[in-house]
Order: sequence, then C-alpha cells, then structure tokens
Amino acid sequence: MIKITFPDGSVREYNEGVNGLQIAESISSRLAQDVVACGVNGETYDLARPINSDASVVLYKWDDAEGKHAFWHTSAHLLAEALQELYPGIQFGIGPAIENGFYYDVDPGEAVIKESDLAAIEAKMAELAAKKEAVVRKEINKADALKMFGERGETYKCELISELEDGTITTYTQGAFTDLCRGPHLMNTEKIKAIKLTSVAGAYWRGREDQKMLTRIYGITFPKKKLLDEYLVILEEAKKRDHRKIGKEMELFMFSEMVGKGLPMWLPKGTALRLRLEDFLKKIQRRFGYQQVMTPHIGNKQLYVTSGHYAKYGKDSFQPINTPEEGEEYLLKPMNCPHHCEIYKWQPRSYKDLPLRFAEFGTVYRYEQSGELHGLTRVRSFTQDDAHIFCRPDQVKDEFLKVMDIIFIIFKSLNFENFEAQISLRDPNNREKYIGSDDNWERSEKAIIEACEEKGLKAKVELGEAAFYGPKLDFMVRDAIGRKWQLGTIQVDYNLPERFNLEYTGADNQKHRPVMIHRAPFGSMERFVAVLIEHTGGKFPLWLTPDQVAILPISEKFNDYAEKVKQYLDMNDIRAIVDDRNEKIGRKIRDNEMKRIPYMLVVGEKEAENGEVAVRKQGEGDKGTMKFEEFANILTQEVQNMINKW
Amino acid sequence: MIKITFPDGSVREYNEGVNGLQIAESISSRLAQDVVACGVNGETYDLARPINSDASVVLYKWDDAEGKHAFWHTSAHLLAEALQELYPGIQFGIGPAIENGFYYDVDPGEAVIKESDLAAIEAKMAELAAKKEAVVRKEINKADALKMFGERGETYKCELISELEDGTITTYTQGAFTDLCRGPHLMNTEKIKAIKLTSVAGAYWRGREDQKMLTRIYGITFPKKKLLDEYLVILEEAKKRDHRKIGKEMELFMFSEMVGKGLPMWLPKGTALRLRLEDFLKKIQRRFGYQQVMTPHIGNKQLYVTSGHYAKYGKDSFQPINTPEEGEEYLLKPMNCPHHCEIYKWQPRSYKDLPLRFAEFGTVYRYEQSGELHGLTRVRSFTQDDAHIFCRPDQVKDEFLKVMDIIFIIFKSLNFENFEAQISLRDPNNREKYIGSDDNWERSEKAIIEACEEKGLKAKVELGEAAFYGPKLDFMVRDAIGRKWQLGTIQVDYNLPERFNLEYTGADNQKHRPVMIHRAPFGSMERFVAVLIEHTGGKFPLWLTPDQVAILPISEKFNDYAEKVKQYLDMNDIRAIVDDRNEKIGRKIRDNEMKRIPYMLVVGEKEAENGEVAVRKQGEGDKGTMKFEEFANILTQEVQNMINKW
Repeated sequence: MIKITFPDGSVREYNEGVNGLQIAESISSRLAQDVVACGVNGETYDLARPINSDASVVLYKWDDAEGKHAFWHTSAHLLAEALQELYPGIQFGIGPAIENGFYYDVDPGEAVIKESDLAAIEAKMAELAAKKEAVVRKEINKADALKMFGERGETYKCELISELEDGTITTYTQGAFTDLCRGPHLMNTEKIKAIKLTSVAGAYWRGREDQKMLTRIYGITFPKKKLLDEYLVILEEAKKRDHRKIGKEMELFMFSEMVGKGLPMWLPKGTALRLRLEDFLKKIQRRFGYQQVMTPHIGNKQLYVTSGHYAKYGKDSFQPINTPEEGEEYLLKPMNCPHHCEIYKWQPRSYKDLPLRFAEFGTVYRYEQSGELHGLTRVRSFTQDDAHIFCRPDQVKDEFLKVMDIIFIIFKSLNFENFEAQISLRDPNNREKYIGSDDNWERSEKAIIEACEEKGLKAKVELGEAAFYGPKLDFMVRDAIGRKWQLGTIQVDYNLPERFNLEYTGADNQKHRPVMIHRAPFGSMERFVAVLIEHTGGKFPLWLTPDQVAILPISEKFNDYAEKVKQYLDMNDIRAIVDDRNEKIGRKIRDNEMKRIPYMLVVGEKEAENGEVAVRKQGEGDKGTMKFEEFANILTQEVQNMINKW
Repeated sequence: MIKITFPDGSVREYNEGVNGLQIAESISSRLAQDVVACGVNGETYDLARPINSDASVVLYKWDDAEGKHAFWHTSAHLLAEALQELYPGIQFGIGPAIENGFYYDVDPGEAVIKESDLAAIEAKMAELAAKKEAVVRKEINKADALKMFGERGETYKCELISELEDGTITTYTQGAFTDLCRGPHLMNTEKIKAIKLTSVAGAYWRGREDQKMLTRIYGITFPKKKLLDEYLVILEEAKKRDHRKIGKEMELFMFSEMVGKGLPMWLPKGTALRLRLEDFLKKIQRRFGYQQVMTPHIGNKQLYVTSGHYAKYGKDSFQPINTPEEGEEYLLKPMNCPHHCEIYKWQPRSYKDLPLRFAEFGTVYRYEQSGELHGLTRVRSFTQDDAHIFCRPDQVKDEFLKVMDIIFIIFKSLNFENFEAQISLRDPNNREKYIGSDDNWERSEKAIIEACEEKGLKAKVELGEAAFYGPKLDFMVRDAIGRKWQLGTIQVDYNLPERFNLEYTGADNQKHRPVMIHRAPFGSMERFVAVLIEHTGGKFPLWLTPDQVAILPISEKFNDYAEKVKQYLDMNDIRAIVDDRNEKIGRKIRDNEMKRIPYMLVVGEKEAENGEVAVRKQGEGDKGTMKFEEFANILTQEVQNMINKW
C-alpha cells in the first residue's frame, strides 16, 4: 500500500501502482467524469500512469491550467492524426499546447493547406474524436525511436530525437498516429467535443529564418459546445481590442522596417500617453521614497560577466559591440540591475542609509527571434518601470508591503479590479540549489507570506517556483474580457549583492550584505500600454487618454468659434482637438467615436451665439448644452477626482 | 600690382608678392606692431608669406582667434626648441595650438619630465624667446623631408611624413629647431613675453592605447605679463568650478570603470536636476507646438546607410551589433534624425500639417577615443534635447524666429546674459559643393539673416562655413569667468529629406520636399549641465538646484522639530534635507555651504518653541527669524517669480 496526500492535507491509502483515474473513482463518479490529468509530487501525469510510491496528488479538471494543457496537447495530436489521414506523406514538426489552445507545425510537402481547408480538417478531427480512441503512452529507447520515425520518413522528429538523451524517450499513440512526446495527455479523445481551427500561418522550423518554412495550424478545443461558443464571442471581441489595430487608429505607436523589427517608435499621442503614465508612477514612487537615476543603454561586457548574465544569455542576445580602440567590448543592456549595483557602490553605505530605492525608466534590449515578435507585447526594445531596493534583511517585509501598496494604487487607478497573486518559494526538498543563507530565505519567504496576509491578499503559494536567487511575488490581472496578463513582479535577490560584493556598515560597525529587491509594477511601458489598450479597448481613463475632447463645428462657419473654445480648454490644460474638416456632423461624430475621444462638443449657431457647447459623452450620449467654461470645470473636476484617488 | 580687399570693403593696390606685415605697415605702424598673422581668402598666412594675386585680406591681432592660434602654435615650437636643448635626443610627436594654449607630445627616452621640471623649461623658453629668432617657412619634398627627419632619428615625424602626399610639405625653423608643420606662425619669437607651462600628462601616440605612451606638456603664453596674471586668476577660479569636482561634491553624477569610460550615470540628485531641466524645456516646447516622440537607441545599419552616416562615420564609431539570426546588423544611434524621418513617413503629410516639430530627449552614442574623454563635456553617451522641424520652404524664417525665442528664454532663465551668434552661409564662389536648389539656399540664408535682424541679434556672418546640406545659426555663451561655450545650434538640412524621400502634398496637389531643421538649445543634457555647473560654480538657480533648503538643528534635541519643518516643506514641494549629524552648528553651516544649498534654516530651543526658523541665505547671510510657514511662502514665491519669466 502507498499513502496519497491530497491538497487539503487528507491522506488515503491505495495499492501500489494505482493511477489518477482510479483515485478519482474512489472519491466520486462525478469526479472521475471531470478529471483530465493529475499532479504527482508537482509533475503532471496522465490519468493512466501508475503511481508507485507515497505521493502528493492533485486531480486536475478542465478548469485547471494543467487540465487545459493536457486537453489541448491531446487535441494537437488529434489534429495531427486528422492531417495524416487527409494529407498522406505529411511530416510533423512540433505541436504544443499554448495559452489558448494548441498548434501543430507541419510540412505538407507538395500540398498546400489554406484557411478554406480548415473546416474539412475540423470535421475529420470530430470524426476521429468520436471513435473514443485511447491515448497510449510508451517508453522507448533512442535507437528504436530513431528507427521508428526514420522508417516513416519523419526527418523533423528524427532531428529532435537525435538531440535527446537516451532512456527518457516516450511516445503517445492514438489510432494510427504516434508522436514523439513527453505528455501528459488525456486518456481518451472522447472528451474533445467542440473543435475550432482558428488560423494557418507560416512558421520557420525551430523558429530560425535559415530553416524551412513550415505550415502552422492553430486551433482550440473544448469539452462542451457552449464553451466554444463563448470563446468565439471573446475571440471576436479580442480582435476588436487588438492593441496593434487600436494603436494605429489612435496614432499611438509605429514600427519601421528601416529602423528594425520589434523596435517600437512612439508617435506624439502615444508618447504623451506614456509620459503621463510615467509621471503618474513617478509621483507615487516619490511618495514612497524612491529616487530616480539614469544610466546608459550599454555596459562593458565585463559588467555582465560579473553579473552572470553574459554566461547565461550572451549567445542568444544582441552580440557585443566592438570599438575602434581594441580590447573594448560593450553590450546593449538587457536589464538595469548591474548599473544600479554600481551606483550603490559609488559611496560607502551605512545601515542608516537603507533602504535605498533606485528607480529608472530604463530602456533595455533583448533579442527575440523575428517570428516571436508581436506588437508591443513581444519586442526587442522595451522600457522597464524598474527599481531596485537595497535593504537590510529585516526590512524585506516592510518593503514588500510598500511595493504592494504601489501596485494596488496602479491597479485601482487603471481599473484592473480583478487580479490574482502567486508566491513562488523554494523547493523544500532541494535547498542546495539556491543561493543565499537558509536564514535569509526563511526570513524573506516568511516576510512575503506575512505581507500578503496583512494586505488580505489571497496568494497561491507555489513551492519550487522561486528563482535560484530568491523568492518572489507575481500579480496576474484579468482584463475586461477575462484574459489573464502577468503584471507586476516583486523579486528578492541574494545573488547580485554577492556577485557585486555590495556592503553596508551595520550598527555593529561590521560589514553586511544588503538584500536586493527587483520590482516593476507595469513590467514594461510597452507591454503595459498594450495590455491597457486591450483591457479598455482604447477607452482610456479620462486623465490618461490622448485627446480628451473633440470639438465638432457643424459647418465651417463655426470653425473660428471652435478654435476659441479649444484655446480656452488649452489654457486649462485640457487636451482638445477641433475637427474642422468639411464633413457632415454625423460623420464627424462617428469618426471621433472611432478615435475613442471621451467628450465631443458640437458647436453651431446657437452655441456660438451663447458661448455654449453641446456635450456628448463616450458611452453616455447627449449631456445637454452648457457654457464652455462650465464644461471645462466639469472635466477638470472629473480628472481631479481620479487623481485624488492616487 | 594686385588688389587687396579689406573686411570693410575698401580696396588698396600693392605690388605682387606683398606680405601681411607690409600691408599692416602701409596702414599704420601701430597695426604693424600688433598684427600676428593674416587671413588670405579665408586661409591663415604667416605675415612673411607673399601674396601673389588679388585677394581678400584680414589682419589678425592677438585678440582674434586666428591670431592666438598662430601665437600658441609658435609657442609650441618654442617649447620644443627648449626641450631639444635641455633633453638631447628627445623625440617629438605633435605640438598643436589648442583652445587655451598649446601642448607638445614628446618622447624623452630614458629621461623623465615631471611637474617640478617645468620651471626650468619655462626659463629656457624665455631665454630663447629673448633671442628674437625669426621663424622661417620652407617648402620641401617628401623624400627630402624623410631624409632630414630620418637622419635626426625622428621616428614619429617620419611616420607622419610617410602618410603625407608629396609636394605639400612645409617645415618651420627657429634657431636650432626645425619642425614638420603646416603653420601658420609668428614671424619671430620675440612677441612671446609671458610663459606658463601648466601640466604634464601621459598621452598615447596618435591617441591609441596600443601605441607608445608619450609625455604631453601643456602650456600657455601671452604677449604681456599682465595677461598671464589675469589668466592664472581665471585658471584658479576655473579649477574651483570644475564640473567634475562639483559634480562629486553635490552628488550629481558618477562614472564606473565596470560600466565603461565616458558613460555617465546620473545619481539621484543629478537625475532630479536633469529632469527639472527637461521639464522646463518640455513646457516651453509645448507652448511652441512641439510634439514629443520616443525612438529606440539602435537602428538597422540600413537606416544609416540611407542617411549617409554609415559611409561617413561607420569606421570610427561603435561597431555594428550582430544578432543570433544571420543577416541583421544594428548600430547604436549616433543621432535621432533618421528615426524622426521614419516617423514623418508614417503617414502622408499635407501642407496643412506643416510645420511638424518632433522633439525627443534622445540618448545617442558616439565613440570618442578614451584619451579625449572629459567629465560630462566629452562623453560616449549623451542625451540631446533634440528636435526636428519639418516645414515648407516658406516657413523657414518663422521657425528660426520661434527657435530663437526658445533659446533666449533658456539663456535668460539660466542667467547666460552674455552670448554671441554666428551665421554660417555658403561659399559664394563654390556653389556646386552644396546640396539643395539655389532658390532654397537663397531663401533660407535670407530667412536666417532677417530673423536675426528682427530679433535685433548681431550675428557674425561667416561665408563658406555652412555644412554641405544647409546654412546654420550657432550661439556661443560666455560664462561667469569669461570662457566661451558653444550652446545651441539651428541647422537647415536639405539632405536628409532628399535621402529619405520625404514629401508633402502642396495646395497645388503636387508632391513637394519639406525642409528639415535640426535644433538643440542645450546641445546635450550632459554638456549643458557641465557648462551650467562651471558657469554658476554649482550655485544653481533656486528652482533648479537639488536641495533648496538644509535644516540644521543646533543639537540632536531639535532633530524632531527639524523633521517636522521638513515635512511641512515637503508638502509644499520644497526640497529640503535635515542635517541631523552629531556635529557643531558651525561645522554644519560650513558643510552645507560646500554643498551650495541656497537656504539654511538653523533651529534650536527658541525656534522649536515658537514654530520658527533662523534663515541664512547663500551669499547673503543671516535673514532673521520667521515662522516656518512664512519661510515656505517666501521660497515658493521666489521660485514662482522665476518660473513666471519663462
């Protein structure tokens, strides 16, 4: 018999070799119906895989991330099975589960797979799923794997296998399709009830431009038709909110092939918006005792050798910059921390000086493969709202509380009402892989947990998810259509203070090592603006939005009056534009609604005579006619009410 | 007979072969006494060099830059002559005139030249100068030059000669010393009446670290002892104002060998000061219709091939950045203009959209040899207060007027009362070397001249000093101790609009080429802050300075009261610190004077009881005791009065 411990702490005994499905059945038949995979000591298992010793077990349903992952991974195999039947001789690259669904990269040889073919493939997948084929896991050695896939002419799979170590190779088979795969998978394809293939795209094999272009088919599946229908509605909504589309419509940012892929350039309206966000955070940070610093965008290679970043990331990054004088090599900075460590070292520090909080809107450069780039969310240059807190070990908790305050102010000010938090701690069974003393780890892990408790924040605790250099706290927000985005990380670091030999003189007159805390509430300005666009659909809070007011003269006769109103608004720091095009008023209203301008002021003969404006508010329509001075007061008050909340 | 035209337009006839000295003598014996060199058709000539055809001639005195240059160049030779006598076998590198004086790089072989040797060298120079040796120019061919310097074992000179083209080589001889030299020089060493050798330093041959380290001796000379005495006073004052020294004392910026030479890092107080300067300029620029943009710090190499910068500067710059994906090469941006051209091209532009004024505090990277680096004035990364105005040809004058307004506001706000301007125009005899139509050049040259006239600005007009791509207007300020600094350039550019194929649609519905104007009133934030430090000696205007107030409790008993006063000042946006060290009040006053803090508030028992502070003002001393709220009002009003002037 073995002992199985459940997440609630309860323990039950089972025969050795029991599997996840049997455990679920032992609890309830409903659970056995819903369970799709299980977690065994932190690793996800197929439901049919035997458990051979005492273990902690979690049963995953569709609603769990791990459950969805297995579900979609099996769906990728189902897609491959369908393609194999429809396109004989097709070769397979990789087919993973992703955040929303799955894809498979395939080489259809002479054949071409187009959007218009997707319906037929969906139908074939449905047909195969209805056969309720079992998904069977098999362990196999490397030579046999090479032989098996080689005989079938699967050159891509053979390339992958040849890079694996022997002994750890598994395959999964359903029906006539066998894949090289680590799993885990559903036990059976029958749970896949609703299927949608969403798009076809080109994708380089291994993401490298010098390799062959394969065909990538994206899809998503669900255990119920209703869930698919809901998803499609959200997908439609997401398309409307695509920050790349809205960014163009609202003239926020641009890319230029001449400047380079993944290097965003901020247009005037986008720059003004970004600077307002930066000023907002600066103001809050000043209140919390942060000090702004500014550092260059390059550093001597030696700086990153010291920090350890060069050894870890050097090869996959922008390569070193040589200089006309020999022997000098610089790197584009991938992060700001090494520079801030050097600022810390500028003068001797005493325990009374701590905490020191150095903040910088620091633009960093990280090389992403061109195929991975996406709008403002995956870029090669981005500006972190970075800060590094250098503190004593006994100050960690207080600093976490303060950073959490900042993050909560941001979430509230920008209407992210819905968020989750995760605490990543050490793996208690594997303490030797972490840097920093046991004492410090215990203290800071406790500090983070207590800080969350004090704030009444329910955070998910994940053992073994901490970086080797320290525990952390992450925040995930849900946007207006339910998508999750990671925003805001607070990360303890025992490593860089060590590597840079940072010190302070304690009250005991001895040298001590400070603790470093990395934190970026926005993450990066680029990604945050993208998330904010997708969250609000471009309808930013009034204090933040590019143009607050559009003044619409009903004919050119009233352009002068419109200009006069604009000048008054300008003087009152209200951002207004005049739409003086020779267009009908209906058209002007529609066009400015598209630009997501919160207020429209229609002006014609009566308004011009009386010094008035006819006010329309975004989403609320007609608000009546009033003196323009009165309107300016109302708007100013509305902005002030928002700012007062910070 | 030949015709000589003078700067005032008058013309005189002379015999062919007349020289500058003879021309001066023909005018007045006093002038013949004072003249040190002459300009012939824009080239500086020795006074003894014959003029063989009609020419424009300017006679240079000591007060002219060209006069000083010849004076100091001859002084460098005099230094070499003295060294040759004192250190037999010494070898010579180069010995140019510089902004303030001259230097000579020498290889003294086994001997060592130290600061303590300078007095003896000065004495020898004075002795030689008193001999009134003539300085004789000689033309020589390359083979003879190599032979002559080779026989004397002058390996450095031979290296230089071997790189020259044949036929253009000249030597200058005075007494026993002959130098390879283009001149021009004084006719005679007798004018050199006062000599000061200022320092000795190491300097790599040709400025390259892989070459031999030579000894560089700096000096300065004058035609009168009184001028030297005045100079030494200023030099002493300049040392006190050295921005590197003050930057450290006031904790404004730092350098780190680990990050890299010439890469400044802004400390908290310096960052805050710089951001205040940036905000100041942003506010003014907003009023003048500028739009902020933000662009990355790298660009695809192709961008700079297109702009022409790569062909011109590529080799001497930071080298291209390779990427893990092949075929991509990026460069650190040496300027922001190509990026701004791409933003211009983002959408079609109409004549109604112009002028567009894109502004960016853009950090650029330019490789300077390590020996050339100096504090914040010669760096490898600096942030330009850059803007590019894209306008129609008929808008150039108006834009110049507006930029001049901005520059004047800055000069006034930062107490640069004393400045000069220079207009650089085409060489009228050499029009084919300029890009852009004759029509446009005439229009914009006229525009600049008229703009200066309208502003009542007396600007020196220099023919032939324009860049090949457009005319410009430069500003030079004099600082508090009379030194000149170039600040602020307005540059017309016909080249980049051409290279980037920029267009706008005119009222005629045809495509037209916009004119581009580059302008940077500060130049760079780094250099400007350096100049401002040296101008003010660190005593910045109250609105700008890092800490406005230091609160000094007379003993630790009053630290709490001091903290209370600070909190009140904080709330009123006044930057205050508390000096709560356990030191005597006299020491605290001295230390905070050193930090150049404008106001000191001394607080003791009486003040604490009455809610008062005893106010001391920088440079004015005791201002009496008052309620701290009253002090806050006074300070706020003082700042507001300054800001109202913008």
